[in-house]
Amino acid sequence: MSEPPAGDRSAGDRRSRRRPRGEAATPLADKPFRHTRNPFAPIEPLSAEQLHQIDDASLRILEEIGIDFLDDEALDLWAAAGAEVDRATQHVRIDRALLRELVGRAPGSFVLRARNPARSLTLGGDAINFATVGGAPFYSDLEKGRRPGTLADFRQMVKLAQQCGPIHLVEGLLLEPQDVPVPVRHLEKALAQFTLSDKALTAAAHGRAVAADYVAMAAIVYGEAALAEGPVFASIVNANSPLRFDERMLGGLIGYARLGQATVITPFILAGAMSPVTLAAAIAQQNAEALAGIALTQLVRPGAPVVYGGFTTNIDMQTGSPAFGTPEGALALLCGGQLARHYGVPFRGSGGLNNAKSVDAQASYETQLSLWPAVMAHANLILHSAGWLEAGLVCSLEKFIIDVEGLAVMQRLLDGIVIDEETLALPFIAEVGPGGHHLGTAHTLARYRSEFYMPIVSDRQNYDKWREDGSHDAARRAHTVAGQLLAAYEPPPLDPAVAEALADFVARRKRELVKE
Amino acid sequence: MSEPPAGDRSAGDRRSRRRPRGEAATPLADKPFRHTRNPFAPIEPLSAEQLHQIDDASLRILEEIGIDFLDDEALDLWAAAGAEVDRATQHVRIDRALLRELVGRAPGSFVLRARNPARSLTLGGDAINFATVGGAPFYSDLEKGRRPGTLADFRQMVKLAQQCGPIHLVEGLLLEPQDVPVPVRHLEKALAQFTLSDKALTAAAHGRAVAADYVAMAAIVYGEAALAEGPVFASIVNANSPLRFDERMLGGLIGYARLGQATVITPFILAGAMSPVTLAAAIAQQNAEALAGIALTQLVRPGAPVVYGGFTTNIDMQTGSPAFGTPEGALALLCGGQLARHYGVPFRGSGGLNNAKSVDAQASYETQLSLWPAVMAHANLILHSAGWLEAGLVCSLEKFIIDVEGLAVMQRLLDGIVIDEETLALPFIAEVGPGGHHLGTAHTLARYRSEFYMPIVSDRQNYDKWREDGSHDAARRAHTVAGQLLAAYEPPPLDPAVAEALADFVARRKRELVKE
Repeated sequence: MSEPPAGDRSAGDRRSRRRPRGEAATPLADKPFRHTRNPFAPIEPLSAEQLHQIDDASLRILEEIGIDFLDDEALDLWAAAGAEVDRATQHVRIDRALLRELVGRAPGSFVLRARNPARSLTLGGDAINFATVGGAPFYSDLEKGRRPGTLADFRQMVKLAQQCGPIHLVEGLLLEPQDVPVPVRHLEKALAQFTLSDKALTAAAHGRAVAADYVAMAAIVYGEAALAEGPVFASIVNANSPLRFDERMLGGLIGYARLGQATVITPFILAGAMSPVTLAAAIAQQNAEALAGIALTQLVRPGAPVVYGGFTTNIDMQTGSPAFGTPEGALALLCGGQLARHYGVPFRGSGGLNNAKSVDAQASYETQLSLWPAVMAHANLILHSAGWLEAGLVCSLEKFIIDVEGLAVMQRLLDGIVIDEETLALPFIAEVGPGGHHLGTAHTLARYRSEFYMPIVSDRQNYDKWREDGSHDAARRAHTVAGQLLAAYEPPPLDPAVAEALADFVARRKRELVKE
Repeated sequence: MSEPPAGDRSAGDRRSRRRPRGEAATPLADKPFRHTRNPFAPIEPLSAEQLHQIDDASLRILEEIGIDFLDDEALDLWAAAGAEVDRATQHVRIDRALLRELVGRAPGSFVLRARNPARSLTLGGDAINFATVGGAPFYSDLEKGRRPGTLADFRQMVKLAQQCGPIHLVEGLLLEPQDVPVPVRHLEKALAQFTLSDKALTAAAHGRAVAADYVAMAAIVYGEAALAEGPVFASIVNANSPLRFDERMLGGLIGYARLGQATVITPFILAGAMSPVTLAAAIAQQNAEALAGIALTQLVRPGAPVVYGGFTTNIDMQTGSPAFGTPEGALALLCGGQLARHYGVPFRGSGGLNNAKSVDAQASYETQLSLWPAVMAHANLILHSAGWLEAGLVCSLEKFIIDVEGLAVMQRLLDGIVIDEETLALPFIAEVGPGGHHLGTAHTLARYRSEFYMPIVSDRQNYDKWREDGSHDAARRAHTVAGQLLAAYEPPPLDPAVAEALADFVARRKRELVKE
């Protein structure tokens, strides 16, 4: 499999790229899909000594305290590798030499194949990939309000994700279609993902059976042989913190890793509840859990693609609620990236977190407080980058569009600056001279349509014009943009035979699962 | 004069600091004034080669194209130093050797004295200082709406700035009290600043007479002798881009620099209008203008404290409006910091820029898109950090409070992480074990009130509780917080003789200026 293009810093090339279908004549027409990389040095909050302290504390946790793996096959693997396994309590203590050796087997970078090969992604190095929100039980928009998510909502959000260039991946758990019975929900979600989008995907890691269904559908789309070449899914495997991986997640981890599919080992830690209240302890525990999960993937299949996931934040001590978009979470993100680089594995962060109940100023500043550190941490996969509202309970249509603006802006920022004789433009600075203006120079006229970032939602009119237009806030304008995008949606091309085979598979599995 | 404390990374010390008067029993009670430093490496978008290209282009601009200084004294100074001065056109060409020698005289760091010595600020190194918005002609709040600013509004905002710990400086031009005649406006503003706040100040650089009034009032407050020891004002001197310093700003520059007061030389460049459309050219021109202004301060008084100001953004090519909180502006900020470090002078950025017309999601995400790069650029002075709305036309009460939340969060982030045996808490991780929770451990109970950042405006309740409480968005909640703060305001102590002398001075100067 060939490496996808490693990002593109040339503004000229960027603009001339051909627009994919469905992205014409929308407010996102000038923001096609493109690979993104972070050219800046990462922000690293830990000194070398602090990194050593965290590393050592994590290894002591795994050696001295140990961790539960609630799955017999996982326990077999650990026992065979020489770890200290207690079958009765399903508890494992892992020696640091063994752990380091296993983590060392994980690749530093890999390619996640998308249905559209031009949209395949590198996970590793300086590559940055933005994924949609995942796992929201509720859906909300300004028209319909807040309500339990439906399959129609799920399909609509996949369509939007397909149309928004800055979105690199569609999260398999995007929102919960609560009108579909739980046992067959993953089939409807996978069908929507595969037919409505050609972007890279994450899949649900909800046990071996779900993993098998996802992989079977991928085999229909890609062919068995192609599937063996490398991963088409990156599936989130959460630790059940503190210090436990449960049966369902381990089924997913083992099921995907065995087939060479990528997993994203992500302790979800709310400091003060699932770990001690101090950030040092929360990060050490995150590190212990992530390393243990990563090591297990390498026991299942040496060299299996795997990502170090960091999702540590804190509970709010006044309400007891999980708090998102916090300075503690930002620090944990930055430390997580630094640790993942230390171990030589790709890093996953989160980019759109917040506790806001409406698409207001709070929704935005908390979101930026996870997006910025995720990018500055050089996270290779940034989940929840668009659509997350209300502590992740809600997938918001308007928040999704506003977040896409934030991602597009970040992409432009990461393009950096082109400096050459032409862009330095000294002859034009001389021509205009002191006190003049550059509005009408040949240099400006040749570039004014394309030089600057063009906003999607941001209003730059003057006050009177804004009032005339209805005094709409950003959420209202985002609602309009979403409508324009959905009206222009066209599905990406798919071989009708493949579409039919997918539909047949889903129909058959639904019958089987309902019988079970 | 002693150096103020260089920031404080110990969470314990931070919390135990005694609260100043007026900050008790408000939502900001746990966020007292404190010095802030950035412990992370700066983000530097320019390669060594690119930095050289910008530097060289800037020096060519000053050597080959030249720059206007519309002030005879400035022209005298340049002529005496050996620059090529055209008296008729007030145009100056500056040789790179001369320019470099002059810029090299500027101090790399200095202390800006505040009325309260504990609130004096370091400008330079890793120190970060947040200032209020400056220069807004309009004031807005949810109750009174948007209207021309008044002296009462000005005084109210100084009171708020005094009460908000994360605000380090009060901008002398905060908002324009349009109910006060222009010739005496600076007197009323300075009186409000000196009597209602004890924080460090910027002053207006609107000619020699205004500078003289500010310094005369400072002499009343500090005494003549103390004033001679170091700066008590950092005054913004804008270039009239492209390539011109006008008479009023030069009067301020010379007036302040001569007396050892600090100036902040800030080209305000909208790329596409006041410079070529390309960012490389805009930054090279900014650099030329900033260096020329800095060099002049050193001609006036070798070693005069001076700050390199970067305020480059772009015009919106659809509306022709200035665009704020843009990715181009963010890149310019990062480059500006890198350039200032290269020349060894402190750097000033802007932290709250946006084009939003209401305190909505746009107001926040654009603000974060100037705050983050300003901090990551290691700007030592971050103007417009609180209250800026609508392209700077409006000082918004609610935006001010929301921005203070953003600054407090940034302060917490910059504190980094304390890692030691106690915070790693391994015995408690062992005690709770797999699958348990840490809510009731002795470790948590000892820390839960103080370990995590406590929000000012952010709502972390659940949806139902939020609805019960009135479904208030962040702006509405900020309005409530502002009211609580203002109700609790107490003026900082001031010798009654000083207060009387200030009032007398203002009364006398008003009579004189009205006669003129």
